[in-house]
Amino acid sequence: MAADKLTSRSEDFSEWYNQIVLKADMADYGPVRGTMIVKPYGWKLWENIQGALNSRFQATGVENAAFPIFIPQSFLTKEAQHVEGFAPELAIVTHGGGKELAEPIVVRPTSETVIGDAYSRWIQSFRDLPVLINCWNNVVRWEMRTRIFLRTMEFYWQEGHTAHATAAEAEERTLMMLDAYTDFSVNEAAVPVVPGLKSNNETFPGADSTYTIEAMMGDGKALQSGTSHNLGQNFAKAFDIKYLSEENEREFCWTTSWGVSTRFIGAIIMTHGDDNGLIMPPRLAPIQVVVVSIFKKAKEKEAVLPVAQRIFDELKAAGIRVKLDDRENMSPGAKYYEWEMRGVPVRVEIGPRDVQKESAALARRDIPGRDGKSFVPQENIVAQVQNLLDTVQAALLKRATDFREDNTHDVTDYAGLKTAVQTGWARGWWAGSDEDENIVKQETKATLRCYPIDQPEGEGVCFYTGKPATRVALFGRAY
Amino acid sequence: MAADKLTSRSEDFSEWYNQIVLKADMADYGPVRGTMIVKPYGWKLWENIQGALNSRFQATGVENAAFPIFIPQSFLTKEAQHVEGFAPELAIVTHGGGKELAEPIVVRPTSETVIGDAYSRWIQSFRDLPVLINCWNNVVRWEMRTRIFLRTMEFYWQEGHTAHATAAEAEERTLMMLDAYTDFSVNEAAVPVVPGLKSNNETFPGADSTYTIEAMMGDGKALQSGTSHNLGQNFAKAFDIKYLSEENEREFCWTTSWGVSTRFIGAIIMTHGDDNGLIMPPRLAPIQVVVVSIFKKAKEKEAVLPVAQRIFDELKAAGIRVKLDDRENMSPGAKYYEWEMRGVPVRVEIGPRDVQKESAALARRDIPGRDGKSFVPQENIVAQVQNLLDTVQAALLKRATDFREDNTHDVTDYAGLKTAVQTGWARGWWAGSDEDENIVKQETKATLRCYPIDQPEGEGVCFYTGKPATRVALFGRAY
Repeated sequence: MAADKLTSRSEDFSEWYNQIVLKADMADYGPVRGTMIVKPYGWKLWENIQGALNSRFQATGVENAAFPIFIPQSFLTKEAQHVEGFAPELAIVTHGGGKELAEPIVVRPTSETVIGDAYSRWIQSFRDLPVLINCWNNVVRWEMRTRIFLRTMEFYWQEGHTAHATAAEAEERTLMMLDAYTDFSVNEAAVPVVPGLKSNNETFPGADSTYTIEAMMGDGKALQSGTSHNLGQNFAKAFDIKYLSEENEREFCWTTSWGVSTRFIGAIIMTHGDDNGLIMPPRLAPIQVVVVSIFKKAKEKEAVLPVAQRIFDELKAAGIRVKLDDRENMSPGAKYYEWEMRGVPVRVEIGPRDVQKESAALARRDIPGRDGKSFVPQENIVAQVQNLLDTVQAALLKRATDFREDNTHDVTDYAGLKTAVQTGWARGWWAGSDEDENIVKQETKATLRCYPIDQPEGEGVCFYTGKPATRVALFGRAY
Repeated sequence: MAADKLTSRSEDFSEWYNQIVLKADMADYGPVRGTMIVKPYGWKLWENIQGALNSRFQATGVENAAFPIFIPQSFLTKEAQHVEGFAPELAIVTHGGGKELAEPIVVRPTSETVIGDAYSRWIQSFRDLPVLINCWNNVVRWEMRTRIFLRTMEFYWQEGHTAHATAAEAEERTLMMLDAYTDFSVNEAAVPVVPGLKSNNETFPGADSTYTIEAMMGDGKALQSGTSHNLGQNFAKAFDIKYLSEENEREFCWTTSWGVSTRFIGAIIMTHGDDNGLIMPPRLAPIQVVVVSIFKKAKEKEAVLPVAQRIFDELKAAGIRVKLDDRENMSPGAKYYEWEMRGVPVRVEIGPRDVQKESAALARRDIPGRDGKSFVPQENIVAQVQNLLDTVQAALLKRATDFREDNTHDVTDYAGLKTAVQTGWARGWWAGSDEDENIVKQETKATLRCYPIDQPEGEGVCFYTGKPATRVALFGRAY
């Protein structure tokens, strides 16, 4: 097992991450450089993320649909900033059906253009508004330095695209989806994100403003985990999305777009994982509970298996995502190692003694070793396991929140920022220019992650320029 | 409304289909020739199809995963028949990130090759078998003559890929998935497919054998609605998928693949639709019931709306997919027209008289006009609506089955086939060669759809060659 040992986080966080992705059976590398294969265990997590986001989208009236992956190259050029942002990252289809194409086709890097074109045809009157559509799909961006889930050439995401009659409605929708993302992150993934506004430098190409949820990873770096863009009338003007108002005037629409991708799986891994492997937040875990039967002799097996099976059946009937591990020729230790690596939040162990005493051992994944074990009667095991799942969920959120707070430092000068971003985030009053922000980035590798929505009252002094400042910004090194 | 009128099926079935797709708000054309946009109403049907298939897959141990859309061009050439079958249909990416690629990349037309490559790495021992994976994704085939849902350049589907230790297990899995498709088609979509074996000419490129479910459309033509392939050891040999057996021998695996696509939406439209539009099978319908409130004066509105709302709430609480149509400035007739076009199986009408009499009118979509209407007390309306949904589901299946039987003709000579395929299918003993089959196709435009699984006993005489025949085949013109 030594050869199989996971590199520790303190030793090499990056290597720890790469190993976990493979060892926890989440994903693999695809044959084309930069592509990934998402294996069943990773995809099930994604499906659970999809379910949790879908229910939030639907509660706000959003419906799912699908737009083509192929976009005429000319579409990309219609919005000036958009093409500038995405042109270097495009994959281009030049041949189809054995012939060279008259106009090359772009594999979508995002769908504002093709959806803008459709909306210009679908939207005629104020009665057609708002249009609230979301797509679950795959997009392609030609990335040079790729890492599974965090940055891949092809990735999976949802992209929401809405059109509205007024600027106020578009801004309301942009913030509504930011709220949905924050609620999902905190309450489903136990990832305590900071919602905020991106700086001008970091705004989506073609947007008026971009909001973000920023998460702190286990190494103190930031991961942008979802974005919500107010596109103003930029795409409406580029694609002629107009409606006839109640006053019978032709007006341009106001549009938004917002997305969360398989990158979020990286956020979960790097927020909760430890030196034994992954830790899945119970509400999204593909497997919430594993029941491990422990026996050596045939007689023990006869006694243990039916009890393990009965407990498995009870948990399953209660709607818990549970797996029974009754493999033979494998030591309990090897089984524990595997399920810990895969991050199953709660393990139920049933051995010969438990059968006699009508007990079971419960092990929680977030607290390793004996401290995380409790011994309980088999009676009422469902309620006990459900409680423990809730406990683990809350503990993961608290631990990640504490970690973020401990590693976020209020700074009042540039030296303070330089120190803070070695290990975590810097938070301080900021009135710098776009150029100032670039200098900070060059000198410290830290970027302005966001202006948090939650701002202190009053005003302050910019830690970099010394000018009066009206907003506090968060800085950090980022993935 | 005259301009808006749907072309009748008898007038021009093909035009009727094209119009329904747009008028029922199912889909639209994408900007790149041959691509489609699936609108929310169409996508919700697809999501319901996904749910119904997923539960059947999972019951047999299949898990979902995702493989890259980009495949190295060299992979396609590894299986000789496979490349021959797909080479003419490929879309090729030659440029990425602003540079010409050293090796062109293929946009997947299907994933046997990239999955075969992964399986060759993942499978080591008999303990790793079987591997049972399914993917929901998009694929691209460069089609010259496209029609929304039936044949598009990009389409959505599921592709299942399994690997097994023995030939028998692979054949069992191939037939198991054919059964799952048949059960789904008949019991969820009310599409009475004929499961059967494809002829040699129609076998998937790279497969040993291909099974199919064939559905008869409203014009008597056949639509291949799903396929299940026994790939033998062809891809295992091409991609070196081997396992160490219990006897410690390196053996090639046996693999299968199987798929149902958004083409199935076309099958639903053309099986059930009538001259008023779409008819959705209740079990898959995006909207199962629409509650239409009928009022003119303000006083009527006050009386009607709360009752309509209450009935909507009751139906929704019972888990029925229901919509409340309380739009003003729109006549009841215009509303009925719209919901009939979209194929909502049951309509509940609530007008001022219904409020007084505590009644409601139920209209079933499959029987137009007064014959399909019943007047029921509001009390216990949920159970009545549920019963009516079941009734409509069963009636659709019976009608489609009767239609297929009425239009399937047993033939004993070639003249009989020629007549039969003018309006439907021909069924007869067949012992012809691949070349004979090609001649029949050239002369009659009819293809051998399948050798049905359900065969008569004994033997017969081939209707074409006069030779002794051991199997009955179905012939028809097809989409």
